[in-house]
Amino acid sequence: MIIDCHGHYTTAPPAHQAFRDAQLAWVSDRSGPVPQRPDIPDADIRASIEDNQLRVLRERGGDLMIFSARASSMGHHVPDPGIARDWARACNDLTARVAAMFPEHFAAVCQLPQTPGGGLDDAVEELRRCVEELGFVGCNLNPDPSGGWWTSPPLTDRYWFPVYEAMVALDVPAMVHVSTTTNPAFHDLGAHYLNADTTVFMQLLTGDLFATFGELRLVIPHGGGAVPYHWGRYQGLANRIGRPGRATELLRNVFFDTAVYHQPGIDLLTRVIPTENILFASEMLGAVRGADPVTGIDFDDTKRYLDAVPGLDLPQIYEHNARRVYPRLTRPGS
Amino acid sequence: MIIDCHGHYTTAPPAHQAFRDAQLAWVSDRSGPVPQRPDIPDADIRASIEDNQLRVLRERGGDLMIFSARASSMGHHVPDPGIARDWARACNDLTARVAAMFPEHFAAVCQLPQTPGGGLDDAVEELRRCVEELGFVGCNLNPDPSGGWWTSPPLTDRYWFPVYEAMVALDVPAMVHVSTTTNPAFHDLGAHYLNADTTVFMQLLTGDLFATFGELRLVIPHGGGAVPYHWGRYQGLANRIGRPGRATELLRNVFFDTAVYHQPGIDLLTRVIPTENILFASEMLGAVRGADPVTGIDFDDTKRYLDAVPGLDLPQIYEHNARRVYPRLTRPGS
Repeated sequence: MIIDCHGHYTTAPPAHQAFRDAQLAWVSDRSGPVPQRPDIPDADIRASIEDNQLRVLRERGGDLMIFSARASSMGHHVPDPGIARDWARACNDLTARVAAMFPEHFAAVCQLPQTPGGGLDDAVEELRRCVEELGFVGCNLNPDPSGGWWTSPPLTDRYWFPVYEAMVALDVPAMVHVSTTTNPAFHDLGAHYLNADTTVFMQLLTGDLFATFGELRLVIPHGGGAVPYHWGRYQGLANRIGRPGRATELLRNVFFDTAVYHQPGIDLLTRVIPTENILFASEMLGAVRGADPVTGIDFDDTKRYLDAVPGLDLPQIYEHNARRVYPRLTRPGS
Repeated sequence: MIIDCHGHYTTAPPAHQAFRDAQLAWVSDRSGPVPQRPDIPDADIRASIEDNQLRVLRERGGDLMIFSARASSMGHHVPDPGIARDWARACNDLTARVAAMFPEHFAAVCQLPQTPGGGLDDAVEELRRCVEELGFVGCNLNPDPSGGWWTSPPLTDRYWFPVYEAMVALDVPAMVHVSTTTNPAFHDLGAHYLNADTTVFMQLLTGDLFATFGELRLVIPHGGGAVPYHWGRYQGLANRIGRPGRATELLRNVFFDTAVYHQPGIDLLTRVIPTENILFASEMLGAVRGADPVTGIDFDDTKRYLDAVPGLDLPQIYEHNARRVYPRLTRPGS
């Protein structure tokens, strides 16, 4: 069985985005009523999935995708808590409908209603609702709700502890995933996402989060940003700060996905990071589109790269690690 | 001959840092006179180099280091232009003394007096002084003088053009290198440096800088941040923005150094990036300290990793590329 741990609903029906657009318009001009989410027919959801993620999943031999709302649209930089709540609920309810419609092929992960500098009570409440009432298996946690201005404390700060407490109580992991950036220095997909992955790993290296939350599990997407490529640097930095071996110690709680879009990158990832810390992911339909003109392989068809690595324990990467990190995943039909 | 293109004067005599401390104190309380730079005896400089960078350079078989002031101490986030000017001049004059003292082993690269949002006239003037009067061969350009808040426009913006015009006129490259960060989200060495490398590459991918400055040469340090590891992602993103092949096109003007501190990282870099775009660098004495307990090799002894790559054109990486990118380098004794 092949579980893709990182897919987003980038193809949601247009009415969903229209609701978001209405929300953003309302934030600028509150003279009208608060926008209400639209009714979206099952048929629209079905078509948007069958023609896209489900088709590609099947074509590539995948079985199950751990699925969440479009990451770049989470839009946590909008400071209104009510808007954030409504938007997260709308996104998560839509994700839940996909998972209910295709229970063998999609397991849901929730967006949290974060705001820059805002409290995390709403995030905890939404996480509980999604896991306990809707059967979600994890969440996406944004370490920079400001959207590229990095105004939040590091993930090791007590500010974040309410979310971690809920995660541990519910036995769900978080994928650490930023949203769009409003900072013109950063391209979302080509800089901000990877920078966040790198940044968070270093926050964890210098902090002591897992001394407090020993059971907490964090998935760093996009192959861990720059981290595996600079694994020697992190070992050396751990020495420098008087914590030799610390980079490796983090691997008790930290996992990397395989959203790395060429063979040399996957070769490095699987050579450097222990197999038990690697979760299969394509992030389709996501950041990149189309095929490498040299190889003819879709850039994000990461299974092709993994299959080409000699001697790899593929069942571990394709299924077993995901089941360990996301224990609420149930087998189809169970 | 082996040229290390990336070394910093991290071992400058304490009087130099004391001057900086006095500057920073004066910025907070301007009741006293503006601090003046200290007299630093030749003997102190000689000792600080001979026991450190020069010793390690020789031990590892290196010949010449392209050398600049400590990057983390550039401190461009301090907004006072006068302080920035005095500090850059003091740093560069010290670097010039090292190069004059050991002309066969050190070639100087200058720090620029940047400030957050400040004009670039002072930077251009200091660049001209260093190259024309002191024989410098390049500069370090900080894409984020705010120190981790990323308040400057992308490097493709016209804001930066005065520096590029001077660089082209003087035929010197810039290494794109940030300084310390005051943003608690980012560790300098483990996040901010690598993020900046990644960020700038994506700025260049989406912009058109080299259509305007065809002769401009930029060196992205730390092995290009996350870029080579995600080379497929950048090719796919180039497709997505309607510019297929653009990542490769950038290699006419963009170069990566080899400050990547383990064998798998160097293997990936040399496999993915054309040999003519790779410049040898260790960044010693820099970010990481000590030896890998498994291999016994100093993490930053990057020559060891390069020597272990089969079939690599080492003279190109060790010497010829540096001479092409830094044409003001003269051969020893010339």
